[in-house]
Amino acid sequence: MIRNSTTQAVAEIKELLGDRLSTAPAVREQHGKDQTWAPGAPPDAVAFVRSTEEVQRIVSICARHEAPVIAYGTGTSLEGHFTAPFGGISVDLSAMNQVLEVNAEDLDARVQAGVTRKALNVHLRDKGLFFPIDPGADASIGGMAATRASGTNAVRYGTMRENVLNLTAVLANGEVVKTANRAKKSSAGYDLTRLLVGSEGTLGIITEVGVKLYGIPESIAAGVCPFPSIDAACQAVIQTIQLGIPVARIELVDEEHVKAFNAYSKIDLKVAPTLFLEFHGTEAGTAEQSQLFGAIAEEMGGGPFTWETKEEDRQRLWQARHDAFWATKSLMPGKESFATDVCVPISRLAECVNETQADLKASGLYGPIVGHVGDGNFHVVLYCDRADADEVKRIKGLYERLIRRAIAMEGTCTGEHGVGRGKMAFLELEHGTQGVALMRQIKQALDPKNILNPGKIVAL
Amino acid sequence: MIRNSTTQAVAEIKELLGDRLSTAPAVREQHGKDQTWAPGAPPDAVAFVRSTEEVQRIVSICARHEAPVIAYGTGTSLEGHFTAPFGGISVDLSAMNQVLEVNAEDLDARVQAGVTRKALNVHLRDKGLFFPIDPGADASIGGMAATRASGTNAVRYGTMRENVLNLTAVLANGEVVKTANRAKKSSAGYDLTRLLVGSEGTLGIITEVGVKLYGIPESIAAGVCPFPSIDAACQAVIQTIQLGIPVARIELVDEEHVKAFNAYSKIDLKVAPTLFLEFHGTEAGTAEQSQLFGAIAEEMGGGPFTWETKEEDRQRLWQARHDAFWATKSLMPGKESFATDVCVPISRLAECVNETQADLKASGLYGPIVGHVGDGNFHVVLYCDRADADEVKRIKGLYERLIRRAIAMEGTCTGEHGVGRGKMAFLELEHGTQGVALMRQIKQALDPKNILNPGKIVAL
Repeated sequence: MIRNSTTQAVAEIKELLGDRLSTAPAVREQHGKDQTWAPGAPPDAVAFVRSTEEVQRIVSICARHEAPVIAYGTGTSLEGHFTAPFGGISVDLSAMNQVLEVNAEDLDARVQAGVTRKALNVHLRDKGLFFPIDPGADASIGGMAATRASGTNAVRYGTMRENVLNLTAVLANGEVVKTANRAKKSSAGYDLTRLLVGSEGTLGIITEVGVKLYGIPESIAAGVCPFPSIDAACQAVIQTIQLGIPVARIELVDEEHVKAFNAYSKIDLKVAPTLFLEFHGTEAGTAEQSQLFGAIAEEMGGGPFTWETKEEDRQRLWQARHDAFWATKSLMPGKESFATDVCVPISRLAECVNETQADLKASGLYGPIVGHVGDGNFHVVLYCDRADADEVKRIKGLYERLIRRAIAMEGTCTGEHGVGRGKMAFLELEHGTQGVALMRQIKQALDPKNILNPGKIVAL
Repeated sequence: MIRNSTTQAVAEIKELLGDRLSTAPAVREQHGKDQTWAPGAPPDAVAFVRSTEEVQRIVSICARHEAPVIAYGTGTSLEGHFTAPFGGISVDLSAMNQVLEVNAEDLDARVQAGVTRKALNVHLRDKGLFFPIDPGADASIGGMAATRASGTNAVRYGTMRENVLNLTAVLANGEVVKTANRAKKSSAGYDLTRLLVGSEGTLGIITEVGVKLYGIPESIAAGVCPFPSIDAACQAVIQTIQLGIPVARIELVDEEHVKAFNAYSKIDLKVAPTLFLEFHGTEAGTAEQSQLFGAIAEEMGGGPFTWETKEEDRQRLWQARHDAFWATKSLMPGKESFATDVCVPISRLAECVNETQADLKASGLYGPIVGHVGDGNFHVVLYCDRADADEVKRIKGLYERLIRRAIAMEGTCTGEHGVGRGKMAFLELEHGTQGVALMRQIKQALDPKNILNPGKIVAL
């Protein structure tokens, strides 16, 4: 792919934005490299936009010159989503940070794409509402929609797939589309919202997002429960879900993580596969949920299950889980970390985690595991010394086996991180030739010049 | 659109299926006319298929001859979805009625497209599981996926959009695609599942469906509550949802319906706007939910709220609601009935229902209203004497005003019935020129010869 006319596009956008178009090397670098081991690739320029109309004009210029145009939110994605392997214009949406409307009676809000999830929740707090999707990082809502993000609360509240009500996006032809109205459900034609959710900026640049909101629960209970094995913990998860206990969070951390927590967070958890849980509801409801879970855990040989409802106690408990990344990182000074994720049917979860742990051991690698196990989704955080060619090779081997294992178990190569460049090689294994061909047909139809985030998901 | 070679396609399919291809006038009529007032249009032939492979071969033949091919499930759709305005082959999937697998631990199942929702629930009963989506009719799961159906349980369990895990479909080029694996969530590329859900057979013919299942709740409580006004009832709904009470069903029936119930079902309900409710959970949970709702209802001037947990008592309560159609029909002997649906944000629901009732009165029309009000979705059942040209005209005027009213309130022209032929004229009003253009681009890319259910949603 040759992009002869990107220079011309940059010049025209400079005229439009003035100082808000940057070609400074540091800015370009920052917008071309994420936390993954994918090699960075800086864009030719970064456009700091303030409105849908500006995005529209930029995309129109890029379309005319066939220059790549790449959406950028907070830069927290993990699969090389916003790198610019063919150069082009990075469109930084972080200044589009206005909450445009909150409809408390309808439990929905409309925000500009650059609003982060934490900023939205601060905005909502005095209305007694919250936006539950929590991928860990303080990502932008636009970026979360674009990558179909989820996280700890998804087992109860769903992912961005379920929680985006509508989107405003600029298409490759420079036209603006609003994908749906505010009705909670609709059967009026193709699901344009879901087509754009998870499309990673390759079908349109999301500039506004309508999201669902929820009332802050009257009572929240949080607890921790050790288990004799990964299998026992996973069986407890399966029974919890099957019984219909509306658990809000159910997170598995492996022994490696518990060791790291104990060292880093100065707490004293039993070194065992452990579930961190949270229950939302009325006071009576969360108490009942906790008791029901406690009984299940005991039956599986787990426990003791201790739970707290006071905010400070809950915060203390979850702090260790939130610090998971830093806790393990502190044990691996000087190494780079790469988090990957897969997702399998929960009946296969214990098997998949056990095999992966055995693989880590056999490969001589440190890769603590943490999982949103209510959905069958787990992460392996791989630590790597890039100068050590042998370690890099072993990690790459393990990474590929992990993905093949998950797909063989009727799972997916990514439950929540997305494809970006990192998982492209595995799409055909997961979706078959025909599935990928169908995705490619859609990309070709909607972006025939291949200007929107080229080289990602299904590269044309 | 001229289809010169449909005759040739019919001949080739006859060779393939023998007796299972019918050109009998009665069979063609039945496969070309639904319960709507859209004029029927019979296909040239009806193919009774038994496997994905047969569908694949039929579509390949039709593609070669550019003959229309139209999926048919149980014939219960309501917007002319399966009429054949350009002739062609109706593919009747009702004999594809096998439940292929049930994964109890993962709470999912895979069924052939012709399995009906009731048949699936009979199959699941002894496993303690159920499939909650209930559009009223005993529709096929394939048809429900194709129309993005929902119904009374959607407020808690979601619609087909949320409950289809994956689909197997035959595309316009005769290739078979499986849209996803069994993982509960995935970020692996474009959401092919959601692209096909609601596409009404215009992008592919669904032959197998993976669906989510749920544990049958330990306790079910059902109740009825009259209100002084539509506004009061809707305010009670809004507060119920905002408080996070996980109501499983919350149905509004208007006074016209209550009158009809009392006459038809020999019960004695107070003639007032009334909510029918159902709560699912533990015994303590449903009791608490019922009490919380009762308190809300009282605050809104509603009540008394009476609720029952014994199955026979619940059945008796809901029977009246289930008989709604027959109850009102018995008051309008000799008239045809046409059910339509719209969906608005719940904050606008009372306004939309009130304005519609006033419009019905001013138009001199009988149109009882029933609504899945937790989602802001309601139906108007219009009764019409087709020989009365003036009444037909008044109904058409009311119908169009209803849809324009819903869209003006940021709602949708159809919450659950779908577009078919009936709502095509309103898609641009709802989605804008660009939204419809985008749908058309997708249709063009995936079905360039326009053989899949032509003349529906976005006619090329």
